[in-house]
Amino acid sequence: MATSTFVIPNSVIPTTVNPDLQKERDGATVRSDEFAAWWAGGEEVLKFNRGVRKYLEKDVDTLEMLQLQNKTHEEIIEFSTRGAIEGAKKLRRLQEERNPRGEDYWPNLYDNQVMWGLVPGGNPFGVMYVMLVKALQAQCTPEQYADFGKRLERFEICGTYAQTELGHGTYLRGLETRADFDRKTDEFVLNTPKISSYKWWPGGLGHSSNHCLVMAQLYIDDKCKGPHMFFIQVRDEDTHEPLPGVHIGDIGKKMGFIGVNNGFLGLKNVRIPRTRMLMRHAQVKADGSYVSSPTNVLTYFAMVRTRCLIAKNNAIMLAAASTIATRYSAVRRQSPIDPNEREPQIIDHVTQQMKLFPEIATSVAYRQASNYLWNLYDVTIQDIENGKYERLPELHSLSCALKVTCSMDSTSGVEKLRLACGGHGYLTSSNMSNIYVSATAACTYEGENTVLLLQIGRFLMKTWRAALTGAPLPPTVRYLAEVQKNPEFGTWSGSWENMVKAMQYAAANKTRLAFKSLSNRLSRGETEANSANHTGIEFTQAAELHGRAFVFSAFTEVVTGPKSKTRSANLNRVLENLLELYLVKETLNQMGHLLRFINLTDTDLSRLQDRLETVLTKLRPDAVAIVDGFDFSDLQLNSTLGSYDGNAYERIFDAALKNPMNQKAVPKSFHEILKPFMKSNI
Amino acid sequence: MATSTFVIPNSVIPTTVNPDLQKERDGATVRSDEFAAWWAGGEEVLKFNRGVRKYLEKDVDTLEMLQLQNKTHEEIIEFSTRGAIEGAKKLRRLQEERNPRGEDYWPNLYDNQVMWGLVPGGNPFGVMYVMLVKALQAQCTPEQYADFGKRLERFEICGTYAQTELGHGTYLRGLETRADFDRKTDEFVLNTPKISSYKWWPGGLGHSSNHCLVMAQLYIDDKCKGPHMFFIQVRDEDTHEPLPGVHIGDIGKKMGFIGVNNGFLGLKNVRIPRTRMLMRHAQVKADGSYVSSPTNVLTYFAMVRTRCLIAKNNAIMLAAASTIATRYSAVRRQSPIDPNEREPQIIDHVTQQMKLFPEIATSVAYRQASNYLWNLYDVTIQDIENGKYERLPELHSLSCALKVTCSMDSTSGVEKLRLACGGHGYLTSSNMSNIYVSATAACTYEGENTVLLLQIGRFLMKTWRAALTGAPLPPTVRYLAEVQKNPEFGTWSGSWENMVKAMQYAAANKTRLAFKSLSNRLSRGETEANSANHTGIEFTQAAELHGRAFVFSAFTEVVTGPKSKTRSANLNRVLENLLELYLVKETLNQMGHLLRFINLTDTDLSRLQDRLETVLTKLRPDAVAIVDGFDFSDLQLNSTLGSYDGNAYERIFDAALKNPMNQKAVPKSFHEILKPFMKSNI
Repeated sequence: MATSTFVIPNSVIPTTVNPDLQKERDGATVRSDEFAAWWAGGEEVLKFNRGVRKYLEKDVDTLEMLQLQNKTHEEIIEFSTRGAIEGAKKLRRLQEERNPRGEDYWPNLYDNQVMWGLVPGGNPFGVMYVMLVKALQAQCTPEQYADFGKRLERFEICGTYAQTELGHGTYLRGLETRADFDRKTDEFVLNTPKISSYKWWPGGLGHSSNHCLVMAQLYIDDKCKGPHMFFIQVRDEDTHEPLPGVHIGDIGKKMGFIGVNNGFLGLKNVRIPRTRMLMRHAQVKADGSYVSSPTNVLTYFAMVRTRCLIAKNNAIMLAAASTIATRYSAVRRQSPIDPNEREPQIIDHVTQQMKLFPEIATSVAYRQASNYLWNLYDVTIQDIENGKYERLPELHSLSCALKVTCSMDSTSGVEKLRLACGGHGYLTSSNMSNIYVSATAACTYEGENTVLLLQIGRFLMKTWRAALTGAPLPPTVRYLAEVQKNPEFGTWSGSWENMVKAMQYAAANKTRLAFKSLSNRLSRGETEANSANHTGIEFTQAAELHGRAFVFSAFTEVVTGPKSKTRSANLNRVLENLLELYLVKETLNQMGHLLRFINLTDTDLSRLQDRLETVLTKLRPDAVAIVDGFDFSDLQLNSTLGSYDGNAYERIFDAALKNPMNQKAVPKSFHEILKPFMKSNI
Repeated sequence: MATSTFVIPNSVIPTTVNPDLQKERDGATVRSDEFAAWWAGGEEVLKFNRGVRKYLEKDVDTLEMLQLQNKTHEEIIEFSTRGAIEGAKKLRRLQEERNPRGEDYWPNLYDNQVMWGLVPGGNPFGVMYVMLVKALQAQCTPEQYADFGKRLERFEICGTYAQTELGHGTYLRGLETRADFDRKTDEFVLNTPKISSYKWWPGGLGHSSNHCLVMAQLYIDDKCKGPHMFFIQVRDEDTHEPLPGVHIGDIGKKMGFIGVNNGFLGLKNVRIPRTRMLMRHAQVKADGSYVSSPTNVLTYFAMVRTRCLIAKNNAIMLAAASTIATRYSAVRRQSPIDPNEREPQIIDHVTQQMKLFPEIATSVAYRQASNYLWNLYDVTIQDIENGKYERLPELHSLSCALKVTCSMDSTSGVEKLRLACGGHGYLTSSNMSNIYVSATAACTYEGENTVLLLQIGRFLMKTWRAALTGAPLPPTVRYLAEVQKNPEFGTWSGSWENMVKAMQYAAANKTRLAFKSLSNRLSRGETEANSANHTGIEFTQAAELHGRAFVFSAFTEVVTGPKSKTRSANLNRVLENLLELYLVKETLNQMGHLLRFINLTDTDLSRLQDRLETVLTKLRPDAVAIVDGFDFSDLQLNSTLGSYDGNAYERIFDAALKNPMNQKAVPKSFHEILKPFMKSNI
């Protein structure tokens, strides 16, 4: 910045809380700490989280962190590496001090939101702990794990998991990287034969890995045995120079995850011992004989877990964006409601409430639905251990549905909230754009949303067909059979239970219609493949409604179920308001589908609109207390607009003054380009 | 990047067109050049545009430009300044050579899409020509314009338009910057008394301006006369150092417009001569007497123009994103439809068509609607010159509605298209994220969308009330009166005309309901202000449908109206397919509102779903030809995924190799941070 006789306001950030925000806290009907304890899963968990966070965030400069996006790409990468390693050290220290045999601090918290404050651009070693170590534990023989898995777990070496290629993502069987078994040397020879075969995207592959788990087509005597996993060293452990035959680097800037060096990997005749193929399930013997895997259940099951995690994380991102936008809406004053009065806090505009509160409710709904599914998952583990695999397809498709709807809704929600912050939401220092780009990535990674919806659609077709034959259905799709039995919806009452039923009814009828279209196509002589492709749009619609019906039912169960008795009346009232808002707004959102199957009168619809407006008013006094109860630290939010003290303008101002473009008064382009042009007569 | 014995593929980008893309071009039923001529507004315009573009883009390195987002913030700023000045020089040269008295090249094209290729991060002098010069022309006295307006027009000085403050945007009367008249010195004294009064956001204010048009509250003898415009010098013309009392700088990184140095401005007792207040309309005399403006019509009218422009630009951004995603979908092969066949081009998946083609249709619809409104605007100018202002409120609210719906739909459309590119859409080198952040900014600037919807809502209330009294209505809202007269919709036929009528019917009935809610609130004794606030959600819904009804009607008129006779049968068929798709998909999108008022049977709805799938199939062979007909150069698209030759993988690869993180094999963080940690036992 530049100035001359101007005296710049000194130390601009007040040490007091913005009075408008303080007023909100004083006037709330629910204690934010009570909400926070519920949200965290109990007082103990809350205390634990807060303790760890405090330890992790000690000595980190919040104001400096707001400069993140003003740093160069290289600085951000360095900075993220430093933050990630500092975090690892601290968590390992805590683990050592408090529970040396456990994993509750390290590595379990390494990809948890308590780390957010240290790696706001993403954790370059996230994939290493979230996916790679898990994959090695599941797929290595005990000898293999002892040999190299343990080293990775101890962070003596570093690595990532490389599956996606430049030319192939979702469709595993299309991968082009190949591993040919060489019987003579007892080795595999790895190659990425074309540009499109290059491994592309793995987080941390660019320059934070010296090893890599590579998914490649296994070839024995030039016969393809399908994709298998190979553990490969890619860089020297001492010098970090790439090994012979290895072409490795950073894929360049992305919309988000700016601190994660997503990378590429080309392999040219890279040889590894036969024992570096992960052989717990499938095996290649020294003589070249191949033993195929007896089961894919575990792989299958790991994906359920990952997708629950994504839903939970995206719900938390939406909660973070809600916190920022709600606090900002309490301190920003703009546009009089009554021209004779002072401009109100913008949170008093009903249209602003309509932008904020539904997203608060949505984040709570998805968080609860993912918890609910998680519990279901734990129960199913028992079944699996007893050899019962019946519920797996159901659980798998439910976790897909939750991943899809949550990533979709949280993404659009974060963007609505950003827009609710007006122009200042467009500043990177608001952090809204960073949350957005993190949220939207989940629509693509770990199963592209449309691909997953099509899978769910196919599952629903199978289930519908099974139900028609009278076969018993697993619990969460039983409503399909019920609708087959009782095709009439009955009376719309608008109760919560009735709204859950309505969403299930719509999902069932969309399934019925898609099934009909599919059957028509088949009976017209289209192939099964083409029929499925042509019914794709209807598949995705039925699948999405199936997901929504699940969230309706899970959230309603959490709020109204037996656990409500353990909560205070005030907390229950707030949760009921959130449930009411969620169900009403989402019912209105899906009205196009609902009205197709259910007869709602004009009075019913007016009543829903009234309920929407009423519950916004009811939530108004508690909005700030609720988002306070999401319990983010300022460092986690990393936002000029959303800090706990509400001094938004001062923080925006401070962040602007510090940005590198203001460190000299006149940029060199003035002398080199602009001035010569203005003085010329061109 | 790093390598050792690996031989990196040399000169990876083929000089030939990808065969899958070539096949699309060969198989199209419409000539892309014919579409391009229609899209441009005639063969002559197309030829003109292409000629200028070729001249502007000469010597610019397309492959280097793909590195834009990998540059540092400072480099991007320098780069954008250079591109903007080069562009200015070239356009001025063309003007001089070809039409020395005209403005058709310079400055008219300076903010046109032909400049996109030179300033992919935005034009730092865009505001100067789009807004500042225009404002000076409209608001200066002839003497003032001769004094400083001309200098700016000739680019002897540079400047921007500063209205928004840190604490105030939309609500003009809330602005805090003040200009006090000092009778003794015949000067105004300007001050930004608080941090929240700082001017904030103006494009080019950071360091591309030595002058500034400042909107400030005029005070005479401490009495406020409301906001007026003052022309102020902020930096020395020779040294570019800020003048005394001026605190000026860059507001820091934003989501987008990374090449535009949006800035801040603090003023402390800055004195300017009385003659630097723009005095064509309101005036301050030397004795301090104040003459208020006789009319605000022109200001009003300028906004109509700006909003038409925004709609047009956002439609073009959507067209650009459609081009990228469609070409990429033709060259990417993934996920078999039939497991026994080769993986298809992803454009053959129906769900992918559903992501692409509706957005192509939407961009065409909005482009046509903005043209239509533009013509209406030209007609109205005549009226105004004859002193007839009746159509102004109608036009104003229509332009707001178009700006809102187009910015909203283009933003979500661009994001859908980005997601349709899978993971690679997340690379900044796809340029999809850059288009997204440009598109979404339009939801906020020049009238925040919700604020505009509320204004339209109030206009609809007034109009509804007028219609109830039998007053005549202007043409584009006449449907409200018709629905009052004939409250029954009649039969749904599903014809295009019928769908237009249905959307109008829904808009009218939403208006009716909002009017009823408002009246109920008023009769319950709520103040007018509170009633309007509480009816806000219904206002915005009615307003949005009003906008959609206009686009329905305008696009239908363009495709089916008399001009269709001037077009070839092939072109008409393609346009009819686009209209069919647009109307059907948008009718389905708004089904929740439509079904509330119109009785569609299950058969009607199935029929719509069939039509949707049928028209996707019809558009399939022409998709690439249509987007080719949008006629973007590779430099304008600036996308690894969307180049004309379709060599997407090779361009992604090439861009990755060039990124700065790959210029050394081992980052210093390895030695400083990572290695010590891995070798330690922490």
